[in-house]
Amino acid sequence: MSEIETLSSHPAFGGEVRVLRHAARSTRCDMELSVFLPPQAADGPVPLLIWLSGLTCTWENFTLKAGAQRFAAQHGLLLVAPDTSPRGDAVADVEGRWDLGTGAGFYVNATTPGFREHYRMYDYVVEELPELIRGSLPVRRGKEAIFGHSMGGHGALVCALRNPGRYASVSAFAPISTPTQVPWGEAAFTTYLGEDRDTWKRWDANELVADAGERLPILIDQGAADEFLGPQLRPEVFQATCDRLGHPCETRMQPGYDHSYWFIATFIEDHLRHHAAALLR
Amino acid sequence: MSEIETLSSHPAFGGEVRVLRHAARSTRCDMELSVFLPPQAADGPVPLLIWLSGLTCTWENFTLKAGAQRFAAQHGLLLVAPDTSPRGDAVADVEGRWDLGTGAGFYVNATTPGFREHYRMYDYVVEELPELIRGSLPVRRGKEAIFGHSMGGHGALVCALRNPGRYASVSAFAPISTPTQVPWGEAAFTTYLGEDRDTWKRWDANELVADAGERLPILIDQGAADEFLGPQLRPEVFQATCDRLGHPCETRMQPGYDHSYWFIATFIEDHLRHHAAALLR
Repeated sequence: MSEIETLSSHPAFGGEVRVLRHAARSTRCDMELSVFLPPQAADGPVPLLIWLSGLTCTWENFTLKAGAQRFAAQHGLLLVAPDTSPRGDAVADVEGRWDLGTGAGFYVNATTPGFREHYRMYDYVVEELPELIRGSLPVRRGKEAIFGHSMGGHGALVCALRNPGRYASVSAFAPISTPTQVPWGEAAFTTYLGEDRDTWKRWDANELVADAGERLPILIDQGAADEFLGPQLRPEVFQATCDRLGHPCETRMQPGYDHSYWFIATFIEDHLRHHAAALLR
Repeated sequence: MSEIETLSSHPAFGGEVRVLRHAARSTRCDMELSVFLPPQAADGPVPLLIWLSGLTCTWENFTLKAGAQRFAAQHGLLLVAPDTSPRGDAVADVEGRWDLGTGAGFYVNATTPGFREHYRMYDYVVEELPELIRGSLPVRRGKEAIFGHSMGGHGALVCALRNPGRYASVSAFAPISTPTQVPWGEAAFTTYLGEDRDTWKRWDANELVADAGERLPILIDQGAADEFLGPQLRPEVFQATCDRLGHPCETRMQPGYDHSYWFIATFIEDHLRHHAAALLR
C-alpha cells in the first residue's frame, strides 16, 4: 500500500471532500484523486461509486461541477474521482493533441512503446484504485459501482462489461460507446494499442456487450444537442447492439443538452439514484 | 442600454446558464456576469436574485461551485452573479494584495483618486446591473432579492440596509458584517474611501442596521471552523447589534464548516428557499 498524502480537505454536505495524492504502481507516477466521504461513513463502511472523467479532465472537473456530493450524502455513497491519465515529466505526451496523451488515457492498458510504461489506466481503475480506497477508507467489500462521462463513459462501460459480477451497477453520460468506429477512439487505440484492430475490440463496449458475462442494466444519458453526438458518440449504434443482444440498456436522449458538465449536473441526481438502488439493495 | 455580448450559453436544469459581457457605465469598463434563466422564464417574468461573491472571485466561482441553479430552477428564480470589481488595463490595482484592487471592489463607491474612476461597484449592483437585466431578460419588476459570501455578504447586507423596500429578502454566508472594525474592511475603506472613518459607517452593516428603514429579516450561515471567523467576520458582534436593536437576524453557526464554496454548496438550498418564500409571496 503506497502512502497517501492529503492535499486538501473540506467539510461538505455533512461529510467531507478530500483531494489525495499517491505514488501509483500501475501507472508508475504520482496520481491525484478526489474522494467524498458521506456522513454515513462515520458510522461504518459504505458502498463505493467510482466516476471516470472525459478528455482533458482531472479529478477536479467532476468534483467541482457535477454537484454529485449532495446526492452521495443522501444515499450514503463514497464517491471517488481519479485522474484521466498518468501525469508528470516522465510520462509520454502527444504534442498538440488534447485527445491523446496526458488527460486522455482512455482507460486502457497501453501496449505500444513509449506508452505501455505509464498508460495503464484500466489496471489503475479496476485494481489499484479500489484497493487503495479499501485500504484507507471505510468502504463495504463487494459494493462497488462505476460511471463516467464521454471517454469516462467508455471507461465505465468497458470496466463493467469486462468484469461480470464485479460492479453492482453502471451508467454513463454521453459515452464513447463505439470507440473502434469513431475518430477519437481510432486515434487513441492506434496510439496506445497499435495498428491491429482486432486487439481494439476488447476495449470497445459495443463489441464487449456480445460476450458480457452478465446482463447488468446500463443507464445512459445523452444530450440531443451534444456537439460530439454524430462523429464521436453514436449512442444509437450501442443501443441497437444492446437491443439486438437482449442486453438491458436505456439511452435517454435529453433534448437541447450539450456535452458540458451542466448536462451532467442536471441529470446527476438520477444516476446517483440508479447506483444507490443497486448498491443498497 | 449598453449592448450585451453572450460569451457562452448552456442548457441546465431545464433552463439556461449564460455568461454575458457589457460595457458598464458605472465602473467604466467591460463587466462580465453569469445569469441562470430558470425554466419558468420561458413562460413569463420571474423574480431576480442577485449573488455577490467574495474576495478574489469573478462570476465564475459561485456559478460553477455553489450548485444554486438546481434550486433556482425549482423555485423559478433568475440568478445573476456579477464580478467583484472593475477589470481591465485602465483599472487601478494594488500590487501584491489580493484583498485590495481588482477582485476586491467591496461593493462601495470609491471616493479616492485613482479608485473613484472605476471602483463604483455599489452603483453597479444596485442600479446598473438590475437595469441591464430588466432591459434584456424576463424579470418581474419589484421582485428582487440579494445575497452573497464574505465580502459579498457584506455587499448584500449593505445594499439591503441602505435601500429599504427595495429587496424582498437578504441573506449571507460568512459576511464581513463589521468591516470598519476588521483588517480587511479597514484596508479596503482606507483605500477606497480615505482616512475619515465617519464616512466608512455608511458601508458597514453593523452601523447601518441602527438606521434601517425596515425590519427585513436577515439569514446568515457561518462556518464555525471558518479560518476568518475571529479576525475578519465577527458574526457575534452583528448578531448582538441586531438583537439590541430588535432587527430580525438569524445567525446559524454550522459546526465544522470552513470559508469555502463547499460550505456554501451545503447550505445553498436553504438560502434559495428563504428568498423564494419572500419573492413568491
